[in-house]
Amino acid sequence: MSVSVPETSLQLQSRLSPDARLHLGLATVPVARPAADEVVIRVEAAPVNPSDIGAMIGPADVSRTRVERSGDAPEISMPMPPEAMPALAARVGPAVPAGVEGAGVVVAAGSSPRARALVGRVVATSTGAMYAQHRVAKVDDLLVTKDGATPAEAASSFVNPLTALGMLETMRGEGHTALVHTAAASNLGQMLNRVCLADGVGLVNVVRSQEQAGILRDIGAEHVVDSSTPTFPEDLTAAIAATGATLCFDVIGGGDMVSRVLTAMETVQAAKLTGHHRYGSSVHKQVYVCGRLDTRPTELANTFGLAWGVGGWLLTTFLAQVGPEVVGRLKDRVADELTTTFASRYARTISLREALDPEVVAAYHRRATGEKYLIAPQS
Amino acid sequence: MSVSVPETSLQLQSRLSPDARLHLGLATVPVARPAADEVVIRVEAAPVNPSDIGAMIGPADVSRTRVERSGDAPEISMPMPPEAMPALAARVGPAVPAGVEGAGVVVAAGSSPRARALVGRVVATSTGAMYAQHRVAKVDDLLVTKDGATPAEAASSFVNPLTALGMLETMRGEGHTALVHTAAASNLGQMLNRVCLADGVGLVNVVRSQEQAGILRDIGAEHVVDSSTPTFPEDLTAAIAATGATLCFDVIGGGDMVSRVLTAMETVQAAKLTGHHRYGSSVHKQVYVCGRLDTRPTELANTFGLAWGVGGWLLTTFLAQVGPEVVGRLKDRVADELTTTFASRYARTISLREALDPEVVAAYHRRATGEKYLIAPQS
Repeated sequence: MSVSVPETSLQLQSRLSPDARLHLGLATVPVARPAADEVVIRVEAAPVNPSDIGAMIGPADVSRTRVERSGDAPEISMPMPPEAMPALAARVGPAVPAGVEGAGVVVAAGSSPRARALVGRVVATSTGAMYAQHRVAKVDDLLVTKDGATPAEAASSFVNPLTALGMLETMRGEGHTALVHTAAASNLGQMLNRVCLADGVGLVNVVRSQEQAGILRDIGAEHVVDSSTPTFPEDLTAAIAATGATLCFDVIGGGDMVSRVLTAMETVQAAKLTGHHRYGSSVHKQVYVCGRLDTRPTELANTFGLAWGVGGWLLTTFLAQVGPEVVGRLKDRVADELTTTFASRYARTISLREALDPEVVAAYHRRATGEKYLIAPQS
Repeated sequence: MSVSVPETSLQLQSRLSPDARLHLGLATVPVARPAADEVVIRVEAAPVNPSDIGAMIGPADVSRTRVERSGDAPEISMPMPPEAMPALAARVGPAVPAGVEGAGVVVAAGSSPRARALVGRVVATSTGAMYAQHRVAKVDDLLVTKDGATPAEAASSFVNPLTALGMLETMRGEGHTALVHTAAASNLGQMLNRVCLADGVGLVNVVRSQEQAGILRDIGAEHVVDSSTPTFPEDLTAAIAATGATLCFDVIGGGDMVSRVLTAMETVQAAKLTGHHRYGSSVHKQVYVCGRLDTRPTELANTFGLAWGVGGWLLTTFLAQVGPEVVGRLKDRVADELTTTFASRYARTISLREALDPEVVAAYHRRATGEKYLIAPQS
């Protein structure tokens, strides 16, 4: 069954050296023999997510990238700010493979019937080390595509789709009926809009420019508010009143956005009260911070009563909490709606070698809204 | 049964007039006839809690108190800062009775056997309007004392005892095993220490002076850290490591205390990790803000990973959430340990008239640690 599997695979790796330089390079690694319940995927497409950039480059200075080697084992390096080194102490030393998720074709399988049944199928996974030509993965960790989806279509089957669905699961599980999303024009934000439209869930989209507002209105978003306008507080409050949102997923993190959202929610809830209530509305208002576009501290004003919560939200923690049954249900939905609700768009497709080109690194590192890159390891 | 019940009762009331003046006065109100499941309490003792001061005076300027009337219906008034008026709009107009909790002797009862069985007993309640000579209350809302407890001993049976027990219920319900408490030298803080010592729960006491640290050490507190010392971050981290605390009840609210506690907790949890973990420890760290000694915004630095939460915690919300069965169990414990674990101390006992003396108002308004006042409405 494994005739088409080479013995080695090129793999993109990231390494932090003790002299505070971050190295990105292509290494040749052996392709393991699959265990009974494993398959070998010939990886055809893997997206460059913001979380991938964070893991592989972190706070390193991409504007000062230096080419260390070209040829068979190309490598670039860039300086890591000294003040970032203490927190990265455990990262110094070994090279770690990059690329959380991706998709490809199963070219070999272990001995179990369920593994063997997948040979030739297009599958996606999020087990990491996907910026590679081949990847061995467990059958349980796969999403098996339907109806002839291509690897490029399946490449982003996990991070964004499960985050969008996870947000709605969290919303329902905690008794909310509508939600607010900040930085809503991103790939994830557009996907969340499609899911909410499909499920009839009210969604308040907070964006930072009229251009971003246009992107969302074009895909049918009903409630779009622009934080760069002077009427933002009133617009936000009106949209929250229209949807009844008491939950927000925020990717800005720093500054006063969290506080502004909670204050708008409390304004809406307090307006429903009769008489004086010292502690404000008793309706719980929640913000989950799942990104840090603004790295300043989060500032919470004392303007939204006492029934509130702010916390971190991390996809892997959510998936571990809800357990395999719920995760399976969510993955099934992603597979069913892969080319519609959960479609991703890419600004550019690059090879593994191009992913180490200093100019290309600078481009995908910018993370411009809608400018997502796709790595095609076979090209 | 109601021979000893007068037809009227003096009641301390608070009123905000449209000209931005807060009025405190004694009014003569009728004592209602008790319904079947009600009793009439001759109120003997009612504490002046910080929450009572907040409800009855709020942000009014007590340093500019003016005597409006003396005699049978004494009244004082003080200016309310204009900037506080919008949030208090619904408070303008009617006089509202003051005093959340208190205790006294049942002097009359409704027709039901369970109400009649209480005549002559010392009971406590937290139904409000307790700064009064008499108060009608439902049997279900009473805590019936045991073993000859006096009204003064029973006066603070609700707010602090149920808050301390509620904190431990929340701790257990959310899977934590130890906790941090800020402003720990308060009456509540000392009570929480006794509960934690009795239950074998690790408690980190954060205080703001060596004097406060001494108060706690004197009552057997094991982990006391002083935020006014330069070694506070290390001391806090060490105490959190020793106890394993992952939950904090904070009454400071503003500034960076919440962030410092979360950071210390994350430092302790991250030290247990092996290798590099980009998002830090996955152990959830929680702070509940249940006071606002510092009214500045809460500032959350980006230094404690992604497994964290901050939220409001309000006793009444907690009691509503856990339901009558749990509340009944907690009240039983308070009654059992009223003069030991849940004993309160008062700096001074005052009459209803003294509660309107400008100098006395200024004194109890200061809310100095350990300086709690008790109102004795019959004196």
